[in-house]
Amino acid sequence: MNKPSIPKGTRDFSSAEMARRNYIFDTIRDVYALYGFQQIETPAMENLSTLMGKYGEEGDKLLFKILDSGDFLRGVDAAALTEGGTPRLAACICEKGLRYDLTVPFARYVVQHRDELTLPFRRYQIQPVWRADRPQKGRYREFYQCDADIVGSDSLLNEVELMQILDEVFRRLGIRVAIHINNRKILAGIAEIIGQADKIMDITVAIDKLDKIGLDGVNAELADAGLPAEAIERLQPIIQLSGTNEEKIATMRQALADSETGQKGIDEVEFVISTLGSVAPDMTAVVELDLTLARGLNYYTGCIFEVKALDAQMGSISGGGRYDNLTGIFGMPGLSGVGISFGADRIYDVMTTLDLFPAAATQTTQLLFVNFGPAEATYAMQALTACRRSGIRAEIYPDAAKMKKQMQYANARQVPFVALAGETEMANSSFTLKNMTTGEQATVNIQQLISAIS
Amino acid sequence: MNKPSIPKGTRDFSSAEMARRNYIFDTIRDVYALYGFQQIETPAMENLSTLMGKYGEEGDKLLFKILDSGDFLRGVDAAALTEGGTPRLAACICEKGLRYDLTVPFARYVVQHRDELTLPFRRYQIQPVWRADRPQKGRYREFYQCDADIVGSDSLLNEVELMQILDEVFRRLGIRVAIHINNRKILAGIAEIIGQADKIMDITVAIDKLDKIGLDGVNAELADAGLPAEAIERLQPIIQLSGTNEEKIATMRQALADSETGQKGIDEVEFVISTLGSVAPDMTAVVELDLTLARGLNYYTGCIFEVKALDAQMGSISGGGRYDNLTGIFGMPGLSGVGISFGADRIYDVMTTLDLFPAAATQTTQLLFVNFGPAEATYAMQALTACRRSGIRAEIYPDAAKMKKQMQYANARQVPFVALAGETEMANSSFTLKNMTTGEQATVNIQQLISAIS
Repeated sequence: MNKPSIPKGTRDFSSAEMARRNYIFDTIRDVYALYGFQQIETPAMENLSTLMGKYGEEGDKLLFKILDSGDFLRGVDAAALTEGGTPRLAACICEKGLRYDLTVPFARYVVQHRDELTLPFRRYQIQPVWRADRPQKGRYREFYQCDADIVGSDSLLNEVELMQILDEVFRRLGIRVAIHINNRKILAGIAEIIGQADKIMDITVAIDKLDKIGLDGVNAELADAGLPAEAIERLQPIIQLSGTNEEKIATMRQALADSETGQKGIDEVEFVISTLGSVAPDMTAVVELDLTLARGLNYYTGCIFEVKALDAQMGSISGGGRYDNLTGIFGMPGLSGVGISFGADRIYDVMTTLDLFPAAATQTTQLLFVNFGPAEATYAMQALTACRRSGIRAEIYPDAAKMKKQMQYANARQVPFVALAGETEMANSSFTLKNMTTGEQATVNIQQLISAIS
Repeated sequence: MNKPSIPKGTRDFSSAEMARRNYIFDTIRDVYALYGFQQIETPAMENLSTLMGKYGEEGDKLLFKILDSGDFLRGVDAAALTEGGTPRLAACICEKGLRYDLTVPFARYVVQHRDELTLPFRRYQIQPVWRADRPQKGRYREFYQCDADIVGSDSLLNEVELMQILDEVFRRLGIRVAIHINNRKILAGIAEIIGQADKIMDITVAIDKLDKIGLDGVNAELADAGLPAEAIERLQPIIQLSGTNEEKIATMRQALADSETGQKGIDEVEFVISTLGSVAPDMTAVVELDLTLARGLNYYTGCIFEVKALDAQMGSISGGGRYDNLTGIFGMPGLSGVGISFGADRIYDVMTTLDLFPAAATQTTQLLFVNFGPAEATYAMQALTACRRSGIRAEIYPDAAKMKKQMQYANARQVPFVALAGETEMANSSFTLKNMTTGEQATVNIQQLISAIS
């Protein structure tokens, strides 16, 4: 029989991996809770009518569809089976799909439960999502998202708090980061002053290459993209933008003097950065106004964030932004939202690379009792119950196997302490406690055993 | 536009529900970890070849199948589309399915990762499973299972520890329970001595009705089921089995004197119950030998457990047992396992009925700062940062809305404390702290604020 396997792009998580993943999830969860966010969960399966058309044509193709149960061909006419291609047939035989992200289910949730919710609603959600992407290194077909969003409030204090959350989570995880901030309205302003609304992606991509190809290179690329000389001329202060955030803001305010939208974007960024300076002067993260940040342009409408690790080569490890009209797609217009998301897999990789997981995060069992036979096992299990009552994670080797085998088990499991009790110890109500790291042994009673490990 | 909805049999969990569910999951997780169990996770999707044929014909029908992505009709000949019925077509266009339980994926995991695992392997797993069952009250198409299993050890100490876990979890949750124990070999022994191996289900079902229909009723039902008078005669001591566990064991040992298998079953139950008495004399749960317990007869081979709440009308809220040869279906024979599973949804219902959730389990935000405008908000947010650093879950209302609206928000969210700071407080570096339960107000500085809430 062949060794069984799992679908490509999916993963099993071993207990060592789970311990480290939980360390990340628990950190994010704790910080979200400190900031008043409330956890919700939505089903893995959504109606395809909820999901289709929300992620563009490409996204529709990446949805995992679930075959209707029972006689799924009932009512499907013979022609549909062979004509019209697979998308049409899929629509006939599949009503449900696996969620593709947490944002659309959240929008659906808000609209469906509008009468039960108190606005502004601060929710967080940590659940897997599924995408039929071509699997490759670092890209999976099942992965967790860790989202926090606030809906029903236009206040920029929400942006400020989300940046504090980004700072706090990475501070706790020990990852040094830069939080890049930009604003969709600044980008719109840039496009406006040069009269090239459709070239904004070309512009940000070219500016992003300044370090690599130099000013002449950037200007050449902009010309190749079809920008007239005059537009490129007007972009010069923006391309060469440098200095502190305050200096950048001053330069941009001047460069975008003719764009009302642009001014609004600068106001927003300035408010967020200066408020952060007042309310969180001890932030660990570097905050940086970055005009090349152009994520999610088709849905973000205000501030945009992206987090990069300073000590590891890795793309964005977290990001987010402000979107107006999240729930409009489900018939509830006028509700503004702002949110962030942590990329757990990339954070995991950064922490592994930089060796940032604390030992305690990966240690499971703290104490193993060796099993010498029925009477000794009963004696050990009485102590075991006491240890667990004191919060010690402990086991007894279930079989009276050879000593060597039991010690191998302790080593393989990386159990730091082993307790042994044979006839002598039982007669003295004691245990021999072995420290597996140092090799030291000591004779202890149950209280000493517990305090040695606690 | 219609209000959006979710697939039937699935659920959204609100933040209040999530808080209570997490209270249950965290309790189970903590106890599993104390007993040295290691968490793993497996993908939601498994290859259908892994799942099919493992749950009987009925189970195969209840698997959610995932339509292959891309051109799923490629290679499917026209005849298959119309002939052979839907199961054959489904097999052509679906390679993957959603997991139906956690046991088969666990068996697959053990075989696939056999070279990385140290045996005995104690794993726990808390993840959702999916079944295309007809939805009804208390039965869902997506629900969580919380399983712990030990593979690679025949020792009955594992059974003892699993019963201790059952006891500890329900003790912590505050649910008074009886743990029913039986043994597959005792049931086989009963069938053996009366020469009616195929009647064991009829017998346990009939015995289970003793309280309701009386001894004559039970005997009549056994006769209806086709048992000869002599067999019914031999069953009398078993049907009328009563007394303490020790008395029951003594009676059964005599009744099954002619069955070696039956004696073995009694030995096992006796060992588990008496060892429990020695190592966990302070157990809270009632332990009861119950011959009518006949769950999972097609896979359990030794001890069987089932937990019932004493103070609520509800089916089994937890259960498990010993199965030999779990991994044989994947080509790795000879590995014995024993495990338990908690029914989170039923436990949730019992706890709701009995009002057992502690208030702290459902409270989210502890403190809300009222927002009186930009300057006041900055002042409040400085304090907010300090509160969060002290571990207080706190928020500021993001907009400078009317006081009434902000207080309504605090009430709706059931926030127990509200802090207010206007000009006067700002001048004195103070806050007005309002206890929302008692209505009391006090002027406090930031340290007093933090200690009042911590």
